Amino acid sequence: MTRWPNRVSITEVGLRDGLQIEPRILSTQEKLDLAHALIDAGHTSLELTSFVSPARVPQLADASEFLAALRHVGGVEFRALVPNIRGGERAIAAKADVLVFVLSASDTHGKRNLNRTPRDSLAELREIVGMAADAGIRAEISLSVAFGCPFEGDVPVERVIDLAREFQEIGITRATFCDTTGMATPRRVQALARALKSEHPTIEPAFHFHNTRGLGLVGVLVALQEGIERFESSVGGLGGCPFAPNAAGNVCTEDMVHMLHEMGIETGLDLNRLLEAARLAENLVGHKLDGQVMKAGPRLNRSDSGGE
Amino acid sequence: MTRWPNRVSITEVGLRDGLQIEPRILSTQEKLDLAHALIDAGHTSLELTSFVSPARVPQLADASEFLAALRHVGGVEFRALVPNIRGGERAIAAKADVLVFVLSASDTHGKRNLNRTPRDSLAELREIVGMAADAGIRAEISLSVAFGCPFEGDVPVERVIDLAREFQEIGITRATFCDTTGMATPRRVQALARALKSEHPTIEPAFHFHNTRGLGLVGVLVALQEGIERFESSVGGLGGCPFAPNAAGNVCTEDMVHMLHEMGIETGLDLNRLLEAARLAENLVGHKLDGQVMKAGPRLNRSDSGGE
Repeated sequence: MTRWPNRVSITEVGLRDGLQIEPRILSTQEKLDLAHALIDAGHTSLELTSFVSPARVPQLADASEFLAALRHVGGVEFRALVPNIRGGERAIAAKADVLVFVLSASDTHGKRNLNRTPRDSLAELREIVGMAADAGIRAEISLSVAFGCPFEGDVPVERVIDLAREFQEIGITRATFCDTTGMATPRRVQALARALKSEHPTIEPAFHFHNTRGLGLVGVLVALQEGIERFESSVGGLGGCPFAPNAAGNVCTEDMVHMLHEMGIETGLDLNRLLEAARLAENLVGHKLDGQVMKAGPRLNRSDSGGE
Repeated sequence: MTRWPNRVSITEVGLRDGLQIEPRILSTQEKLDLAHALIDAGHTSLELTSFVSPARVPQLADASEFLAALRHVGGVEFRALVPNIRGGERAIAAKADVLVFVLSASDTHGKRNLNRTPRDSLAELREIVGMAADAGIRAEISLSVAFGCPFEGDVPVERVIDLAREFQEIGITRATFCDTTGMATPRRVQALARALKSEHPTIEPAFHFHNTRGLGLVGVLVALQEGIERFESSVGGLGGCPFAPNAAGNVCTEDMVHMLHEMGIETGLDLNRLLEAARLAENLVGHKLDGQVMKAGPRLNRSDSGGE
């Protein structure tokens, strides 16, 4: 018999992981409109932006202003990705609630994207954890390509576990394991979830899937069965994969919520308001998004039309 | 612990369930090219066409000629949908290997699509089973909206089981339970699979999902866990739902096969050749299909490009 949890918590990452690859750069006001729509739908954890180089990711160049404009909103955790010390300093100055330090599970992917190997990143992580502690801010981890690397292929579960052990020693209590390019499969999700449970009971894991090969919600389902209760997803399925320009992006928040609610699993989110936020996101980026429920409607919406 | 089967069998339905709603009507020669590509990829069970009224579904008006042109191919089961007695007569005359009689699990859907209720259809089924037996041809069932009806909402599992009991009494040994408009959820798939197993052990079930709300492969995964070993799917994800014009169509064959192979489950199919067939299908219908692996490539194809 499969067991599913009664409740899961969801961090919305569309504003960061989604917008960072959109050709159209949204204004800070447009991002605020979308953030408010997401908060109105019940979100209490948002990955808002990334303190990367504005030259490298102009879509997120307004990170500090955007965060400052939302600081008055209570009861919501505003998370910011930080790729390095400089980003950490900026995120602390901008008063992010959580610094999410990003590192890669693969040497090749790490060097190409962060200009350093996972081992080099760990030294920086120690420093950032110290800075965050001094500022009274929590530091967490976002581990890229945890289920597979587009350059190296399968990433051994043992390597991910070794990194998680390092995170634990450095004082990290929460880490997100990201399927950056949609390489997770039922077996790999099962293997990582089980190894994390048996090897690192003090690290609270979240899983972050992409639907690049159609397996995003399959990953969520398998993870649920293995006792994972924290997920990241993106409104409308905003996001993508630079290695597969036409493929689907992140797991779509409202499609996942639709599935979870139909399984009797609580999320604290209002599906209809999520759908409104997804339509807003679609208007803002100016093209169709991958979300399916926004096209078909929730399953029990009655139809009056004909058809085969 | 979840258990997965070692092998599943797949019936390709793109030529019927997919092409029937395409605006472009393929020539018989184009359909033959696609059928041969699918057979070259290892398919041994194809739902080729439907013996419906050519006025109603002009896309499948060449049913007899198409079937006749493939009759020389050995080792492949050529299946034809039949909605009524007249269709059954035509399918027998055209020497289909299997007559797939379609009926609906919902009164409203049945009346709108087949002009009769499930109960009316059962009388016709008896006649068709007799005709097929006289011709030495197997008759099977395709049960529409078995997981939910766009007009009536949830279809009770008990009603589906009652129908399955009737099928069994009429002498049917195989039935496909179709999620015609993408209303299956993990709970409903689990409930129907378990009820079929406990109530009707002599009916061999196949499950047929649509990805209308992003849950197609989730349905396959849950069904696998419940011991279902026969599935229907569509090359490239060809197909759709008249109630949700922009939504995704059938579960995509090659995306499902990619998932199954990565789970160590055999299908007898060659993924790369399936991808070639999907690209051919895309060219023939003249628009992008929903398949994801055809866009992103199999997960272990290495990338040489850069990216975030």
